[in-house]
Amino acid sequence: MDHEVADLPSGPLGIYRKKASFNWKEMLHFIEDENIQAFKQHVFKTLENDPLFARLPGEDVPIEKMRELTFLRVKQLFRYDFITQEEAMANPWKTVILSDCLGMYDWAIVTKSFLTKGMFGAIVANSGSGRHSKYVENTEDMTVFGCFALTELSHGSNTRAMRTTATYDSSTQEFVINSPDFEAAKFWVGNLGKTATHAVVFAQLYTPDQVCHGLHSFIVPVRDPKTLLALPGVLVGDMGKKLGQNGLDNGFALFHNVRIPRENLLNKTGDVTPDGRYVTPFKNPGKRFGASLGVLSSGRVSITRMALVNLKLALIVAIRFSAIRRQFGPKDTEEIPVLEYQLQQWRLIPYLAAAYALEHFSKSIFMNFVEFQIGQMMKDKNGKQAEMGREIHAIGCASKPLGSWTAQRGIQECREACGGHGYLAMNRLGDLRNDNDPNCTYEGDNNVLLQQTSNYLLSWLHAKHHDGVQIESPLHTVDFLDDYRKTLGSKFTATTVDQCMDSTVPVAAYKWLVCFLLEESQKRLEQQRASGKDEFEARNNSQVYYCHSLAMAYIEYNCLQRFHKLTTDQDTPPGLRPVLSKLCALYGLWSLSSHMATLYQGNYLSGRKPAKLVQTAILILCSQLKDDAVALVDVFAPPDFILNSAIGNADGQLYKNLWSTVMQGSQVLERPSWWKEFCSDKPVVGSLRPKL
Amino acid sequence: MDHEVADLPSGPLGIYRKKASFNWKEMLHFIEDENIQAFKQHVFKTLENDPLFARLPGEDVPIEKMRELTFLRVKQLFRYDFITQEEAMANPWKTVILSDCLGMYDWAIVTKSFLTKGMFGAIVANSGSGRHSKYVENTEDMTVFGCFALTELSHGSNTRAMRTTATYDSSTQEFVINSPDFEAAKFWVGNLGKTATHAVVFAQLYTPDQVCHGLHSFIVPVRDPKTLLALPGVLVGDMGKKLGQNGLDNGFALFHNVRIPRENLLNKTGDVTPDGRYVTPFKNPGKRFGASLGVLSSGRVSITRMALVNLKLALIVAIRFSAIRRQFGPKDTEEIPVLEYQLQQWRLIPYLAAAYALEHFSKSIFMNFVEFQIGQMMKDKNGKQAEMGREIHAIGCASKPLGSWTAQRGIQECREACGGHGYLAMNRLGDLRNDNDPNCTYEGDNNVLLQQTSNYLLSWLHAKHHDGVQIESPLHTVDFLDDYRKTLGSKFTATTVDQCMDSTVPVAAYKWLVCFLLEESQKRLEQQRASGKDEFEARNNSQVYYCHSLAMAYIEYNCLQRFHKLTTDQDTPPGLRPVLSKLCALYGLWSLSSHMATLYQGNYLSGRKPAKLVQTAILILCSQLKDDAVALVDVFAPPDFILNSAIGNADGQLYKNLWSTVMQGSQVLERPSWWKEFCSDKPVVGSLRPKL
Repeated sequence: MDHEVADLPSGPLGIYRKKASFNWKEMLHFIEDENIQAFKQHVFKTLENDPLFARLPGEDVPIEKMRELTFLRVKQLFRYDFITQEEAMANPWKTVILSDCLGMYDWAIVTKSFLTKGMFGAIVANSGSGRHSKYVENTEDMTVFGCFALTELSHGSNTRAMRTTATYDSSTQEFVINSPDFEAAKFWVGNLGKTATHAVVFAQLYTPDQVCHGLHSFIVPVRDPKTLLALPGVLVGDMGKKLGQNGLDNGFALFHNVRIPRENLLNKTGDVTPDGRYVTPFKNPGKRFGASLGVLSSGRVSITRMALVNLKLALIVAIRFSAIRRQFGPKDTEEIPVLEYQLQQWRLIPYLAAAYALEHFSKSIFMNFVEFQIGQMMKDKNGKQAEMGREIHAIGCASKPLGSWTAQRGIQECREACGGHGYLAMNRLGDLRNDNDPNCTYEGDNNVLLQQTSNYLLSWLHAKHHDGVQIESPLHTVDFLDDYRKTLGSKFTATTVDQCMDSTVPVAAYKWLVCFLLEESQKRLEQQRASGKDEFEARNNSQVYYCHSLAMAYIEYNCLQRFHKLTTDQDTPPGLRPVLSKLCALYGLWSLSSHMATLYQGNYLSGRKPAKLVQTAILILCSQLKDDAVALVDVFAPPDFILNSAIGNADGQLYKNLWSTVMQGSQVLERPSWWKEFCSDKPVVGSLRPKL
Repeated sequence: MDHEVADLPSGPLGIYRKKASFNWKEMLHFIEDENIQAFKQHVFKTLENDPLFARLPGEDVPIEKMRELTFLRVKQLFRYDFITQEEAMANPWKTVILSDCLGMYDWAIVTKSFLTKGMFGAIVANSGSGRHSKYVENTEDMTVFGCFALTELSHGSNTRAMRTTATYDSSTQEFVINSPDFEAAKFWVGNLGKTATHAVVFAQLYTPDQVCHGLHSFIVPVRDPKTLLALPGVLVGDMGKKLGQNGLDNGFALFHNVRIPRENLLNKTGDVTPDGRYVTPFKNPGKRFGASLGVLSSGRVSITRMALVNLKLALIVAIRFSAIRRQFGPKDTEEIPVLEYQLQQWRLIPYLAAAYALEHFSKSIFMNFVEFQIGQMMKDKNGKQAEMGREIHAIGCASKPLGSWTAQRGIQECREACGGHGYLAMNRLGDLRNDNDPNCTYEGDNNVLLQQTSNYLLSWLHAKHHDGVQIESPLHTVDFLDDYRKTLGSKFTATTVDQCMDSTVPVAAYKWLVCFLLEESQKRLEQQRASGKDEFEARNNSQVYYCHSLAMAYIEYNCLQRFHKLTTDQDTPPGLRPVLSKLCALYGLWSLSSHMATLYQGNYLSGRKPAKLVQTAILILCSQLKDDAVALVDVFAPPDFILNSAIGNADGQLYKNLWSTVMQGSQVLERPSWWKEFCSDKPVVGSLRPKL
């Protein structure tokens, strides 16, 4: 496929585009090969050309209508079938790109189709057996519309505590699915509000001897596919309005002794014989539980990417706006673009650097994950595969917090940096923030997930101390910890701003920081244990300032290090290296800023100078990058139709576009339907005031 | 008025309520006298008893409907006339309490009625003269519905740069109001979208000799009060959906040579004679401009309070939720409330401390403002009155950023701390965040406003150095700066955690911090000037890490100091002092945490110990306050009807309330109207895939 990248429209942004230090098309080619670029343009054009995907900027679309549109669009995606299964297998990265493209349009269509095919379909395929293949097939053409029902009204993070039961009745060879009370209603289930016909329901499996065999998953029909009416015994409905992502219908279900065939148990990790005996290939129930939930962990890597996409869109809007919006100036008669203000640069450009860092990071951890998945498919049972699983898990559990929080804060900063216009719905910053928000709490609450990562790091230290092992992991993200004692002796050595503007400075500082926090966390844990706290409490009391900071520092370091390696890689085009190096240094120093107190506390820094060097370096990097900022967002920017933000259009005609979008609104100039309420029936002031 | 505070309903929150170290009713009485309490209950009950104010939790109300409801409710408020003008004069604090109460219900009704009466009405009264009194009277009974039209599409912060013109035509004795192009359309004007009949329009005044006399304000009729149709020459309309506050109709107006009588000029600061001569009592045009915009500054003090109210509501929801929600525990069979986790405490309780600090702060700066206003009304022309004006301005310009950002971050933390349930619209955290958001950017962008405060502080230092004056201000908020050299020699002296848990520790640290940042900012400015930068650029390049941090540190210190004084005041009841002292210490230490690097950098702290002491003190204070947290939010909490969040109800029946609110939703169990789209017309997979 030969793909030509179109030039951007000329206009007021041209001033900054001409000042850029690099060729934005070269950057685009470096990040995405031609095939991917062509594929993206194909997806974007397809949506733009299809009236079903018409944009209604700033319109007040009722939720019922949003859900209908989302459903119709998902159906249309089945028809477009942008990536076949074979293509996905041959190039898994392409599925991420497709998700990026559709998500830039609206995450609801991605999530809704993913939940039925990628989640319901994949779980049935992976956790079931041959007897379930028709369900998988039926999701392919929407005969079945699936959902994944794990969380309950009173339980989210603590998945083991789910209370829905599945009791086997050998007389009819059926499972009886029951919700003991409304607190055990399945809740927050995407697709269940309006459309799901079938659910994978997680329930405690009981055999007739009243023994509980723990959480298992079952295929439970919930609605009649011919009528979309609820099936007997199933109370299923819509949870209502959410803060965002309202195209997706989240729902609840309460089961009143619903009977399903024995075969509907997804039996990979355990089965019940017709006469009611429980059989499992696993000896250790904990391991079985881990395996049955293991399929979830890919979600976190995807969410990291989703958050990044949201951050990119917000940055495109805010940086283009800032390059055009003029306010004040050296003289009363001359106003300058707000991007020229140091404060505006400092608010936005570090997030732009973070977006470039996360771009590479999210791609590279996805590739790690693919490597791991291939191992799984090869039934790799060696120790390295299991080790890689643990490491990927630790990365995924911290990459989601890193991505989602960076995006959430960055989008809020973009919204504020656009002033009032950022508060107008049609400019999309609100939707981006609201749609990104759940990334912080679903698929594992960020704060809870970070404990998985710190546990992983602490377990290495423990193994080193107690078993004398060398710290070395398959992806080598923890190898540096082996040397932690030596690293803890290192100091900040930069003495000039120029030295400080190199990413080796934050890389070295982070290395020290992670080692320091690891040792401090371990000491804190030991101190808690020594004071008589049980393990549960000792862990809980070691999160703030210790394990939590450790996990964040580890993942920031990992993200920074991968980016640093890219900027120094021989294959990175020389024309791009300067700008990438600046972005990398800025990202590193800016991230590091939130740990400055710790760096001083542990004596890695001392005296007034180091903090001043870091601050000065950040400000200089921001000012050096401000002329590149527009070109840097051009690289990420989808067509205006997809971006859907009048103040962020590629032509930079900020006010023309904003004004015309306002004027295109429905009933914009009409008087309100309730105008007579103003013109007659004037209030008598105080007429309802109680007479004393 | 004798007012009895009702007990709270019993329920699961009782466990924490019993553990509280203080009597919540005593705290309530301490914060609010009986009259105020009775007044609040009267307002709350009135709304609850009026079907027009019925709640629709989580309902998807169309914007047109929201605006109608808001208008009807505002009309009803005219009838209730909760506070007469005489009552407001006698007890100005009561107007704040009324705003609190109505704002807890919905800010849109507050803003909408304020904009016509408090803004349009007050500006006409203050900037006009006897000839305008009928307009003021007409706003009283809604014959006129007013708005305030200052900002334009392409100008917000830079008010002087407005481009709308008012050209005097002496032949007809009229002003011709004109928008040169759509970029000069008045934009973001509250009430102008649907309902305003008259606008105070700010325009550049031109006399027939083509001399521009700068920005003046004019009363411009925009809609026919009999029909609500736009008047000839006025293109007026609705800007559409915003991220929040959608009950308020923000609008735009473009004027095509609209003629208004000469008398419609608000002539306090300047007038035009019938034959077209400009006359003004002011000699200095800058002073005139300042006076004409001066009336705006009370808004910032009000916004500080509005933000606090939003933060309080979010905290009530999140803390009650955290006290009931159980997840995980020391054993698989026993789960503990999430409020028992140190991490959850650390996420929420510092914001609770901030709410108590801001409660006192917002009240005390309001009282300062009232004192200042009384001076204005007394036509106090002495130097102290002018000095107090400058000081109030500096406080207001920083209190709004402090309040609005603390609330914005706190609400987001509350939303995340409630996990998925926090993402459900019916639980209100989304609306609180969205409605609070514009507080960060309107009435002056936070970042722009902070420059006013730092300029004020720097001007004192300059006066001391160059004119040898002693630094001493009417409200004494800057007096400590006079001693800055000595203060800069001080060090952190606490050596134990116990010592550190006293608010004198952060008070002392802040004192040093403000002095340090003041001196650093001044050095930075001088260094910029010395390097040849003009004043504009020198100021811009001294914001990040310097002036911006200085202004924030000053206002945090001021807020902390006022709270500290309260906790040590003889009149503060002994039964409340321990809990207030803990809240004060926590607020101080927690706020200080964001400046730790600076404290190390300037050598106020050194070595590992101080940071550890501060961290340990914060964690201990959080754990000591967690049993008080429910009672502390009970003090703030309005009735459930006003709070309007199922997960935050006073009875703590989290799941029952949530479940019943979900079930009360409209069409919750119905199949979607578009169900046939699922059941027939199945997609043929790939049918729209391009054939290669």
